[in-house]
Amino acid sequence: MTIRSRDPILLTPGPLTTAIATKEAMLHDWGSRDSDFVEMSQDVCARVLEIVGDDGEYVCVPLQGSGTFGVEAMIGTLVPANGKLLILANGAYGRRMVRICEVLNRASVTYEVPENEIHDAVQLDTILERDPEISHVAVIHCETTSGILNPVTSLAEVVVRHGRRLFVDSVSGFGALPIDCESVSFEALAFSSNKCFEGVPGLAFVICRRDALEVSAGNAHSLCLDLFDQWQSMGDNGQWRFTPPTHVIAAFHKALLDHEEEGGVQQRFNRYSANCRLLVDGMRKLGFETLLPDESQAPIIVTFHTPADPRFDFNIFYEGLRARGYVIYPGKLAEADSFRMGCIGHLDTSNMEGALTAVSEILEEMKVKNRGRLARSAASD
Amino acid sequence: MTIRSRDPILLTPGPLTTAIATKEAMLHDWGSRDSDFVEMSQDVCARVLEIVGDDGEYVCVPLQGSGTFGVEAMIGTLVPANGKLLILANGAYGRRMVRICEVLNRASVTYEVPENEIHDAVQLDTILERDPEISHVAVIHCETTSGILNPVTSLAEVVVRHGRRLFVDSVSGFGALPIDCESVSFEALAFSSNKCFEGVPGLAFVICRRDALEVSAGNAHSLCLDLFDQWQSMGDNGQWRFTPPTHVIAAFHKALLDHEEEGGVQQRFNRYSANCRLLVDGMRKLGFETLLPDESQAPIIVTFHTPADPRFDFNIFYEGLRARGYVIYPGKLAEADSFRMGCIGHLDTSNMEGALTAVSEILEEMKVKNRGRLARSAASD
Repeated sequence: MTIRSRDPILLTPGPLTTAIATKEAMLHDWGSRDSDFVEMSQDVCARVLEIVGDDGEYVCVPLQGSGTFGVEAMIGTLVPANGKLLILANGAYGRRMVRICEVLNRASVTYEVPENEIHDAVQLDTILERDPEISHVAVIHCETTSGILNPVTSLAEVVVRHGRRLFVDSVSGFGALPIDCESVSFEALAFSSNKCFEGVPGLAFVICRRDALEVSAGNAHSLCLDLFDQWQSMGDNGQWRFTPPTHVIAAFHKALLDHEEEGGVQQRFNRYSANCRLLVDGMRKLGFETLLPDESQAPIIVTFHTPADPRFDFNIFYEGLRARGYVIYPGKLAEADSFRMGCIGHLDTSNMEGALTAVSEILEEMKVKNRGRLARSAASD
Repeated sequence: MTIRSRDPILLTPGPLTTAIATKEAMLHDWGSRDSDFVEMSQDVCARVLEIVGDDGEYVCVPLQGSGTFGVEAMIGTLVPANGKLLILANGAYGRRMVRICEVLNRASVTYEVPENEIHDAVQLDTILERDPEISHVAVIHCETTSGILNPVTSLAEVVVRHGRRLFVDSVSGFGALPIDCESVSFEALAFSSNKCFEGVPGLAFVICRRDALEVSAGNAHSLCLDLFDQWQSMGDNGQWRFTPPTHVIAAFHKALLDHEEEGGVQQRFNRYSANCRLLVDGMRKLGFETLLPDESQAPIIVTFHTPADPRFDFNIFYEGLRARGYVIYPGKLAEADSFRMGCIGHLDTSNMEGALTAVSEILEEMKVKNRGRLARSAASD
């Protein structure tokens, strides 16, 4: 743990703090076409499919890049030219999908709700009823803009009942938020290496229904982001079309083994939930208010309202935490004056306690008294 | 060096053998929006621009993914809808650009020569003369299909004389093959982290003329592969649009510092040239024939004709080298029955000598006598 203690603890939505063993897995070089690497890469995909409870219906396609590369590839490859995507948006990642559809020239409509609200299954039902042209529906598992947990299972049920196809952007949730292909009958699910599996960034994955991928040849707008081509090329011999991020894959392989060792998704969920609980309770005790009610809070990242006291200065707060060894997410929401703290990564409640102590010290230094939300920072601002 | 000795030596065109210190740079975690990381990422780009001798005319745009992601992004962002790209092809990477243009629906024409030949400046002149619609010309610095060094400087001169814009795919050459923006007036040059700079894979870069990028808004076919958007988003605060491969960038940063320490491009070229010379001479002594004449051989990867003796079995050869700690490239050329051995990476002539000893042993074991090329493996097969 000598290196960990030199590095700041990352209370961010990822890249996040990873285990030393995960990083040490990168202390080797692999020939990308050599069998050692190919087997490791295939093993990663097989383990991923096991996690969603696949019975042979799905394939796992890895892709170089970040989670968004996976999301763009999913839309570009699986929505045909005459398709139409309904995007359930309540934050930046939903809005990013809208932009992807614009750039890719794919028809889309948006069902948008405020960043602190979830989508309503009844309303989704009505939208699908009224617009038979909608072929696909995209939902974001945990929208990291706010940290909200969208009700994927109940929304999926409506989508399936209408015979439409479901995309799940579970980039920030998969690995810790339970989801399987039986309870959520998705067409495709995108995730990345560097979130709840605690790998390092550089890799996206799309779990696709095999029969959907099989008929997707020629759909994609891009060669690099063509999941069909990526999958077909790998089919015969497991070799990547284009140079894979070998070290990132090795780290992810190690992270997956550790994920299993820890007890899989359920145990990861439990650890993150304990982190989240401790963080939220502790911050509330210090006077902060969360953007979200507890029932829609995913144990991934928590949004706190900026304190009403004008003596609170976010830059001083950020740098004060930084100096004490904690990096929080500097980004802001579109709709609320707030800041965010992650509770995922190779961290446990002792790290959260340390962060709370640091927060408390900085508030004292800044002499911040009123830590409740500003009246003007209502979510509807 | 304990870890190096456990890992096989990679005689491949990349991913390749990297220095331990480069891999050790990945033993940390970074917040991707934290100043430590942002500064490292900016420093990487500044150093890259110095290497091409930029005077403020160019920008360096990093991109998640492999070298091909950079090439696709370069074409997609910089060739406008009414543009037309002339591709100088003599191998798989030229043909891949043709495919990229097909998928992206960009007009293109190809000037193709056999894999063991270079393009003729006079003929290029005629092509440009006859087709004023050609707006851009793409040349591949070292085509790793064969290992050939394309005469970029003389070809560039023709392109510039005709007022067309030049793309250089220097994915496998930049860092070791000398090139600067004064002697080769390129519009854009794409390269990757894991070739001659001896970083790990997961990152592409495109060095673009600033004024070309400035007018490229809205050209791109993809959100992720939009270099304009990537550059604009980074402009203000140096932050990446989408999660960057933090560890890969840290490794690349370290690799760049070591590249400078070694003596920059010239010294890297010298080391690889010595590796190449020793490999080619040694293999010829063993009876092998190279695909290329010495004058068009880049010191990156060497293609050898498969020996005429039917006792030569490539799989036994590959596995025999593998067992002795050397991984060669298992791929084959389209046009010639051959195999390839790389001479780049954190390697010197002692590694090449070791590889030659291994080759010699395996040939003895296989009882391969006639190591000259098969009559039927002529390049025009």
